[in-house]
Amino acid sequence: MRLTELGEFGLIGRITRIVNNEGEMRDVVVGIGDDAAVIRTHPGKLAVLTTDMLVEGVHFDLAYTPFESLGWKALAINVSDVAAMGGFPLYGIVSLALPKSWQVEDVELFYKGMKRCGERYHCKVIGGDTVRSNGQGFISVTVMGEVEEGCVARRKGAKVDDLIGITGRLGGARVGLEVLKSGHDRDRFPDSVNCFLEPRVRLKESQWLVKEVHVSSMIDISDGLSSEITHLCQQSGCGCRIWEDKIPVADETVHWVRQYEKKISNYLLGSGEEYELLFTLSKAQFEAWQHSHMNQKRPEITVIGEMTQKEKGICLVRNGETVPLVSEGWDHFVQ
Amino acid sequence: MRLTELGEFGLIGRITRIVNNEGEMRDVVVGIGDDAAVIRTHPGKLAVLTTDMLVEGVHFDLAYTPFESLGWKALAINVSDVAAMGGFPLYGIVSLALPKSWQVEDVELFYKGMKRCGERYHCKVIGGDTVRSNGQGFISVTVMGEVEEGCVARRKGAKVDDLIGITGRLGGARVGLEVLKSGHDRDRFPDSVNCFLEPRVRLKESQWLVKEVHVSSMIDISDGLSSEITHLCQQSGCGCRIWEDKIPVADETVHWVRQYEKKISNYLLGSGEEYELLFTLSKAQFEAWQHSHMNQKRPEITVIGEMTQKEKGICLVRNGETVPLVSEGWDHFVQ
Repeated sequence: MRLTELGEFGLIGRITRIVNNEGEMRDVVVGIGDDAAVIRTHPGKLAVLTTDMLVEGVHFDLAYTPFESLGWKALAINVSDVAAMGGFPLYGIVSLALPKSWQVEDVELFYKGMKRCGERYHCKVIGGDTVRSNGQGFISVTVMGEVEEGCVARRKGAKVDDLIGITGRLGGARVGLEVLKSGHDRDRFPDSVNCFLEPRVRLKESQWLVKEVHVSSMIDISDGLSSEITHLCQQSGCGCRIWEDKIPVADETVHWVRQYEKKISNYLLGSGEEYELLFTLSKAQFEAWQHSHMNQKRPEITVIGEMTQKEKGICLVRNGETVPLVSEGWDHFVQ
Repeated sequence: MRLTELGEFGLIGRITRIVNNEGEMRDVVVGIGDDAAVIRTHPGKLAVLTTDMLVEGVHFDLAYTPFESLGWKALAINVSDVAAMGGFPLYGIVSLALPKSWQVEDVELFYKGMKRCGERYHCKVIGGDTVRSNGQGFISVTVMGEVEEGCVARRKGAKVDDLIGITGRLGGARVGLEVLKSGHDRDRFPDSVNCFLEPRVRLKESQWLVKEVHVSSMIDISDGLSSEITHLCQQSGCGCRIWEDKIPVADETVHWVRQYEKKISNYLLGSGEEYELLFTLSKAQFEAWQHSHMNQKRPEITVIGEMTQKEKGICLVRNGETVPLVSEGWDHFVQ
């Protein structure tokens, strides 16, 4: 159905039916359908607020991105920002600028994906704005969450000699994107495709990192490892050494690189949209934590480097040789 | 300067210098420059969250809108939504999708306007996202505020026989837009032009309406009186009667209508982007309030109608005759 047939308020009604779940709305005093949402906050918690904008043709391509995955991703990348602060998400609001070509069913799928992601990470969609675009589609999602006092993990805070750790394995998102663009191989690289289309968020890991491991700084890898470690170093006033051979690689990435004779470093250092957490912790903390958790089930984390004095710069150790690490991250305006 | 010369992180640095004012940042634990903003909330207060998206060519036209006014307006319309809930704003976050044609100086002016609006209404800009657009410019602002328990003013809550009130005078925004589009008469209609470009927000009035007058429902007039009263009626399960001759008209609107022989009702019922507050209150409350405030300085409010039973419909009393009030509001998809 065309948006012009249903109209703005008809669309809002449909959206409300998709996202509303009265049972879960305990702390929502006013949800969708008023001038603003009103929610109860909790004593002893700080509020976390983050926003991300996705532009059709820049951040997503409908040729290979289903609307439902787009909805998941639009929320997930904000949830990941909250996780990177040591917080947990509570509420999401979304603004959509809809081109004429998008159908009512597309918008519904978008919201279904967002709702599914919200259920997974306990983040309720409580409002937003739907407007017309006379060009591309634009998506702006804002997430409000909470973080306990003393659990805030910033980009600054890393100290010289701290170890650098990472959750999960890298390379999947870039392989996923290349598979989707190529139009084949999809069945052989399902994890990579999923990693790109519907990234999982390291929310549980984040809570564990701030509460058990007591990380000294943290960031999520939305723009690639080389770019994000540069942010951490700059804001913490340190240099670093990343041991390239320690960077954990996703299995499918190894296969992809072998099959197409690609350079693996591009997939490890420059693969954006991974949404793994990159963090630092003191060596003493690392040892204490390792011993206390020896026999317990714990999230997969890997130590991939160490912080150094600022003067030593941001470096990569490759085949035993230390070379400058060039940030291969995304700059929206220079690309 | 072109955005491509400065780059994303150069731009973020400049923006941060414009909006940051450390002295005012008491409750901001983490501001611009991290994965998310972290802020302290206050016991006994509820959080208010609202968002609005502005699309170039749909919601604003750079042919007659200076970037600084655009910044003011982008924040003000969200502050108005918070006011319409009975709350006060605290923090704003803004996402911009920037076309190649926008210069660094344009973006700085945008932020300066937003900052000026934020200072006026005590709303601090604490974060956001800047991305590239390969088409038009898109602006998405989210404001977080607070409202005291018991002060939440919703769209629903109006009762049969409640009076309908309004702050300020209507018509200015539409005249302002027509003046700007015409390209002349600007000096003769300065209030109207300002009303359109940099709308003031009825924030003080809102606090007074929820705390002193105890309104039963409230909404801001962003889409025109006829549209907004329809929302109030639908959500409150009532009908209404608006007395057309009681609707307060801005002085310049009277002049404009006379000069160009326009139909004044279009300016009163269909003038969007006014950002006056439309509210309801019981007759008893109105009388009690009138007597207690007889000799005190108080905001300008005007009673323009009354709520009726749902079956009576949404009506306008024009020249003594009761006619159905047709909603002339904005539907983003049907226009």
